[in-house]
Amino acid sequence: AKRLENHYRDAMDLEFTIEKNRLFILQCRVGKRTAGAAVRIAVEMVQEGLIDKVEAINRVRPQDLDQLLHPQIDPKAEVKVIAKGLPASPGAAVGKVIFESAEAAVVGLSEPVILVRPETNPDDIRGMLASKGVLTARGGMTSHAAVVARGFGLPCVAGCESIVIDEAAKTFTAGDVVVHEGDFISIDGSTGNVMLGQAPLIEPTITAEFQTLLSWADEVRKLGVRANADNPKDARKAFEFGAEGIGLCRTEHMFFEKDRLPVVQDMILAKTKEDRQNALNKLLPVQQSDFEGIFEAMQGRPVTIRLIDPPLHEFLPRYEHVLARVVDLRARGVVPGTPSYELLEQQEHLLDAIEGMREANPMLGLRGCRLSIVFPEIVEMQVRAIFQAACKLAKQGKEVHPEIMIPLVGHVNELKLLREQLEGVAKQVMQEAGCQVDYKFGTMIEIPRAALTSDKVAEFAEFFSFGTNDLTQTTFGFSRDDAEGKFLQKYVDMKILPVNPFETLDRDGVGKLMRLCVEQARPVRPDIKLGICGEHGGDPSSIEFCHQIGLNYVSCSPYRVPIARLAAAQAAVADGVERDK
Amino acid sequence: AKRLENHYRDAMDLEFTIEKNRLFILQCRVGKRTAGAAVRIAVEMVQEGLIDKVEAINRVRPQDLDQLLHPQIDPKAEVKVIAKGLPASPGAAVGKVIFESAEAAVVGLSEPVILVRPETNPDDIRGMLASKGVLTARGGMTSHAAVVARGFGLPCVAGCESIVIDEAAKTFTAGDVVVHEGDFISIDGSTGNVMLGQAPLIEPTITAEFQTLLSWADEVRKLGVRANADNPKDARKAFEFGAEGIGLCRTEHMFFEKDRLPVVQDMILAKTKEDRQNALNKLLPVQQSDFEGIFEAMQGRPVTIRLIDPPLHEFLPRYEHVLARVVDLRARGVVPGTPSYELLEQQEHLLDAIEGMREANPMLGLRGCRLSIVFPEIVEMQVRAIFQAACKLAKQGKEVHPEIMIPLVGHVNELKLLREQLEGVAKQVMQEAGCQVDYKFGTMIEIPRAALTSDKVAEFAEFFSFGTNDLTQTTFGFSRDDAEGKFLQKYVDMKILPVNPFETLDRDGVGKLMRLCVEQARPVRPDIKLGICGEHGGDPSSIEFCHQIGLNYVSCSPYRVPIARLAAAQAAVADGVERDK
Repeated sequence: AKRLENHYRDAMDLEFTIEKNRLFILQCRVGKRTAGAAVRIAVEMVQEGLIDKVEAINRVRPQDLDQLLHPQIDPKAEVKVIAKGLPASPGAAVGKVIFESAEAAVVGLSEPVILVRPETNPDDIRGMLASKGVLTARGGMTSHAAVVARGFGLPCVAGCESIVIDEAAKTFTAGDVVVHEGDFISIDGSTGNVMLGQAPLIEPTITAEFQTLLSWADEVRKLGVRANADNPKDARKAFEFGAEGIGLCRTEHMFFEKDRLPVVQDMILAKTKEDRQNALNKLLPVQQSDFEGIFEAMQGRPVTIRLIDPPLHEFLPRYEHVLARVVDLRARGVVPGTPSYELLEQQEHLLDAIEGMREANPMLGLRGCRLSIVFPEIVEMQVRAIFQAACKLAKQGKEVHPEIMIPLVGHVNELKLLREQLEGVAKQVMQEAGCQVDYKFGTMIEIPRAALTSDKVAEFAEFFSFGTNDLTQTTFGFSRDDAEGKFLQKYVDMKILPVNPFETLDRDGVGKLMRLCVEQARPVRPDIKLGICGEHGGDPSSIEFCHQIGLNYVSCSPYRVPIARLAAAQAAVADGVERDK
Repeated sequence: AKRLENHYRDAMDLEFTIEKNRLFILQCRVGKRTAGAAVRIAVEMVQEGLIDKVEAINRVRPQDLDQLLHPQIDPKAEVKVIAKGLPASPGAAVGKVIFESAEAAVVGLSEPVILVRPETNPDDIRGMLASKGVLTARGGMTSHAAVVARGFGLPCVAGCESIVIDEAAKTFTAGDVVVHEGDFISIDGSTGNVMLGQAPLIEPTITAEFQTLLSWADEVRKLGVRANADNPKDARKAFEFGAEGIGLCRTEHMFFEKDRLPVVQDMILAKTKEDRQNALNKLLPVQQSDFEGIFEAMQGRPVTIRLIDPPLHEFLPRYEHVLARVVDLRARGVVPGTPSYELLEQQEHLLDAIEGMREANPMLGLRGCRLSIVFPEIVEMQVRAIFQAACKLAKQGKEVHPEIMIPLVGHVNELKLLREQLEGVAKQVMQEAGCQVDYKFGTMIEIPRAALTSDKVAEFAEFFSFGTNDLTQTTFGFSRDDAEGKFLQKYVDMKILPVNPFETLDRDGVGKLMRLCVEQARPVRPDIKLGICGEHGGDPSSIEFCHQIGLNYVSCSPYRVPIARLAAAQAAVADGVERDK
């Protein structure tokens, strides 16, 4: 057996029989193993001199590492799967079903909770944060629930269309199973499975062998690996997993937290410039302290901060909810002078405000840099907060490298205008503080037109970061929220598309645009830093493509950083083999 | 004076004075003129041998011809402009203000009506058709009101955000002017002006000189000129204005007509395959007769028919309206067994159905070929209707050339699958009829990915038609409905964009994609027919670009066909001059 393993240079499964005192070896194949075992075997074989480091790197499938980085359901356990949704945020969770976010926020303090909602919106954030996991009946891989859950490292099954929620009765049904509030369920955000009862969980471990393998990967890879992190906690996790910087810090997620959302709403609904400025003045110190925490956590590594991106109406209650409240109050016939009447008047004003802001296609509307051009006060506050935080730390002798990212640029003039304006704010803050920090200004490439005109955009950008979630949406003309629920799965089943392009980068279409973008930009600005911060940044096949077109780094969720380090190494190895041919 | 005109070879304005019996010529410049005069002068100067035909072609600005093709407000009249919106559909109209479509549909039979709505939806079509013009407070150049009005040749001012409509009081206010129902207003869909009272109108005339100039243009131009027409009336108008074919016939506009919409809604809300097929069976003869009318009107010229494109929920009442009705009925507490209770139940079902179909970003959702892949029955009915119509006429000895256009293709496999399926239907119908007609299958290029992978798409397409409205939306990441109301005008004012890219093609971005598409497709299929059917097909600068990248034809609204003929000739002349250099 030892001789066979040496020969095949791998752990082998042997089948043998002993007949008439003779040993017959019937079959011999590479042994099946868990990701943990694969890592241990690969590292041990290098230590035994059987294979070299490069071969060890190639022996482990990066995507299998996901098992090692989140709690998992014990594969030996018998579970009862009652429904299946989208695997929206990896990891498994067990808890009691709660249907209201406000209740989840309370119950979650003392007991494990799974929040079950038709879909989520900013009002649900508190309840989500207090829960162990989230299950939604509607929405795709970029629905509010999915994005927020991934950001918070919270397991989530989204768009589970086969469950029917009855909020009034506080039950949901899945086929013929009725689940009541308070019943235990388990969800697996890596597979999309929803199970009845408490499935046994296995906690993640990063072993010494795993660390060793990753250090070998780091020696080989050409791509840098950064993480997407929106708060100090995620930034610390990213640092721990070996991220060389933050590739995407989404500043608006900070706006959704419970103590801040009312101030953000005041800012949005302000009727005068003065009221708006007052609200912004309240947000400034809060954002500054967020940035201080992130800079501290990253210990001098670069932090790319994306300025506010979503349309403002995303921070307000949903139009339909307010409409229903208004119609209901009117139908009941409220009397002037009563509290109901005041409520009606207030809700009518809110309805008018939302009515004026809502959009036919919010993904393609007043958001990103467009918003900042129309309402420059918000980004000016954000840039002030970034540089006040940076200067404070710099004065304490700490290293900081903020990189300001302006989102959704389609025309170079958008970037030119905002950069001039915001670099002015940055310089003013540094002058006020009597301090100089190293900084960069750049843009996300997420609109086809920006990629097509990258030679012009590069004149005003020190870095590009491919926002491949939105770039995939615009290049395909897919709204991910709609497509994943309504036809994308059918497309993959019918083999119209080989894979879901939001999971693995579409090289023929989106990739062609990225390659064109790189080829046009580099001659204009040879030292431009090129990265990717869409979810593809954590997908091994997409990472390989990023290596091939010569990006400088990939950025992904903290929990995928080890996967990206290994995948980047494998891409470099494959490239070397190609070249040696 | 004659000598001067001969010298400058143009009609001149002369300033002179006579002092001491001597004539002093003080100033001499090219005379200002209306479009009608410009055409007449240019043609007469050729006839007098002063200039040649090519120079005559260059003497007239194509966009000025618009004046000659629609009723206009007499420029000498004194009018009181009370508001300004988007010039959504050219021409001027005068009528009495009516706020409800149902009422407009009645009053419009006997009196001139201007329909004034916050925005329009399919329920308003009847009222719109009975009106002389439409004014909306919300919506952009591709809002429902704008698109339908242009299709019907109905003057429209859309997105007039400065008017405040009070539907309950039946008034609208513009600044401090209050307009009541029944008051006369005038609108100018070419400028966006809204005026109080009855402005005097000038009717369009196509003079003999105009015909002569256009015939010279036809001798010179390389680009074909087709028209966008959705019904026999528009097709006849297009033919009259010299269209060489239909470049875009939108089949779903036929679904919006009052006698058809209920059947379309039955089809969409059908609970069984059988119910759906029953509804489709009712639509089949209606669509067939539409196509017969269009084929007849075009007298053997090619007709490009686009299969159903919009998301199905566009044919249903708006979610918010049904929601409000349901909440209202519930709050009033209806009693089982009463008609109100039945209404509530029926509206609740409708609400559920719409809820299941509505989308976060309908522009990027389940529409176009995606819809046809998920629900193939609708397009199968449409192709059957097209070929039954074509065979019927062919048997009468008439020439027909249907070109079936599959919209919203992003991946070649979508086209491949649908073409195989639908060509099967076409062949079956021809076999049933014992008749063979000449036909083509092709696709619209309106998704960046289709342009980027045009070499692959061309393998299954006999023609491409650039849908530059949607291609501009996806390339810029702009939702036109949202952008034009919320930031696009500001972008143009601030010179971030040189012009509105929905009016004049963006050569650097969208144009680069089009050029790439052409360069990749032609080698794969040298005889591929390439056209454009977005609104840019009627814009002179965009037509010049289409000539430069070597398209075969442009297609525009019937009223812009003469403009396109002249602009195409000017592009060919400019190109010849370039080459001679």
